[in-house]
Amino acid sequence: MVSDSYPHLLALDWGTSSLRAYLMQHGRIVDTRQSGHGIQHLPAAGALGFEQALKAIAGDWIQSWPTLAVVASGMVGSAQGWREAPYVRCPANIQVLAQQHVRVPSGLGPDVLIAPGVLLDQPGQIPDVMRGEEIQIAGAMSENPQWAERCCMVLPGTHSKWVEVQQGHLTRFSTYMTGELFAVLCQHSILGRLLPTDRGAARESDREAFELGLAQARSGRPGDLTHQIFATRTLGLTGRLQSAALADFLSGLLIGSELVSGMAARRDMEPMPLVMIGEPALCQRYADALRYFGQPVAAVLGNTAAQGLWNFALAAGLLPTDI
Amino acid sequence: MVSDSYPHLLALDWGTSSLRAYLMQHGRIVDTRQSGHGIQHLPAAGALGFEQALKAIAGDWIQSWPTLAVVASGMVGSAQGWREAPYVRCPANIQVLAQQHVRVPSGLGPDVLIAPGVLLDQPGQIPDVMRGEEIQIAGAMSENPQWAERCCMVLPGTHSKWVEVQQGHLTRFSTYMTGELFAVLCQHSILGRLLPTDRGAARESDREAFELGLAQARSGRPGDLTHQIFATRTLGLTGRLQSAALADFLSGLLIGSELVSGMAARRDMEPMPLVMIGEPALCQRYADALRYFGQPVAAVLGNTAAQGLWNFALAAGLLPTDI
Repeated sequence: MVSDSYPHLLALDWGTSSLRAYLMQHGRIVDTRQSGHGIQHLPAAGALGFEQALKAIAGDWIQSWPTLAVVASGMVGSAQGWREAPYVRCPANIQVLAQQHVRVPSGLGPDVLIAPGVLLDQPGQIPDVMRGEEIQIAGAMSENPQWAERCCMVLPGTHSKWVEVQQGHLTRFSTYMTGELFAVLCQHSILGRLLPTDRGAARESDREAFELGLAQARSGRPGDLTHQIFATRTLGLTGRLQSAALADFLSGLLIGSELVSGMAARRDMEPMPLVMIGEPALCQRYADALRYFGQPVAAVLGNTAAQGLWNFALAAGLLPTDI
Repeated sequence: MVSDSYPHLLALDWGTSSLRAYLMQHGRIVDTRQSGHGIQHLPAAGALGFEQALKAIAGDWIQSWPTLAVVASGMVGSAQGWREAPYVRCPANIQVLAQQHVRVPSGLGPDVLIAPGVLLDQPGQIPDVMRGEEIQIAGAMSENPQWAERCCMVLPGTHSKWVEVQQGHLTRFSTYMTGELFAVLCQHSILGRLLPTDRGAARESDREAFELGLAQARSGRPGDLTHQIFATRTLGLTGRLQSAALADFLSGLLIGSELVSGMAARRDMEPMPLVMIGEPALCQRYADALRYFGQPVAAVLGNTAAQGLWNFALAAGLLPTDI
């Protein structure tokens, strides 16, 4: 039967530096592609750049199945994106995200429905934002009804997110600039001077140095971090750590610092499972650190954006309800 | 009388990015010059670069007064300097610094005596280092015998130092990467994207934004900083702060964070006067922040390196003892 081989959805996980396309049928990925056409690396300026990037990655798919539904999440919906999808406020669930989509012509036939980001803006508090992670969380929720009921999801990365989920809603979250801080300190500060010049090469992680960083983070008092990071230099200058181990110390210190803060924010609450979502090697690093801190991890998931985009398309009414 | 117009000392404050030369007589500065020939910006490679930089800034002085004593402090004594002056350990005073000088021919007649840096290296603790600040502190101590007896000296900057002084000795200290962290975040992270492009231009400081940063720092728990810095973006995205005020928020957050940590380290000790040393505008920013935190400042001093180098030369026996 034709319908069995006809995919339902083209799901686009469209970030700053890369674009992932998932061809989906019955909620499952049947094909996937990736390109470097993140929103800051498009082949042309303006809407044309987005159209060309979409055509390059999935033009043949759309030509083969012209009634494919097309959805997208991530920075593609930011002010610098294809069309801005204004933030929705916490608490938000998949229905709210779907209601607040924006629609843009793809230039190839079907429109693209872009998911909004999420804003946490409580009186007297510093606001926080996410864009793209809310869809990954929606995907993760559908993997286990208990998580949708109540959990904390951690998405480590350039801008790590700690997200509280309750009754299918994303209720509260915090961003940590852990990954970006690590990168700018290694590349642009004095701390990079003692690091090996071939850091890009594959190398063993130094567990002892990583745990020394974790231990420093655990013993840190408020405000200590800008002092503690300088140890990346002094431990090298005094020969206490080899040059090759210094980056692992800094990584442990910054990840540990994020964990100390993230766990403290949940200390006075009822315990909830902690679910990690993201790139496997980085999640492993976080899971090691959490184990060092005695904090169990309920699960480690890979990229759940495709499943989240499927749920988003379903909630937006783009897919037949009997799928 | 000839002796009255014959200076005793050429004192060089020689850092990474600049070189300051002080011509001194009877412990007072009679002339001063500055050049951009910091140790990373020399006119030639190796020792020749240092000789040429010295000749350019003070060759005529040495020619006029060939028996001038010449001393130097700062990164000129680092492993990347003219000659490495290995760190001395805490507790250190001016006599220890003078004993552990290194001597290098200037190429212009007199030798140059270079002061060592100071290392804090206690068992079970992360080590810390300074190079140049120890001489400024020696200069500040001679301005007030009470400070030499017991005080905390704060030298704000790229790498701020909090230094405990007791009975003429530098006993303990901590480095905070406040200034460098501010610079790399503004120049190389996502936080810089919302800042005005003409930040270099002179502008009014936004006191309200600065104090919002201080308030965040004061309410911060351990590890919160890497989350809190992201507010520099979200306060801009949500329009809570004008673009021009965002850098002041980040400045308040980072300076405040340093102060919270620095003051906490002294909370369980007997109170001691807090003395600031450094560039007047930056010291003023710190003094404002300390006032916001209810912490009195005993004094704000400018660059005390010249006085410290005079004391160093005296302790090294380079100057007649009856001066």
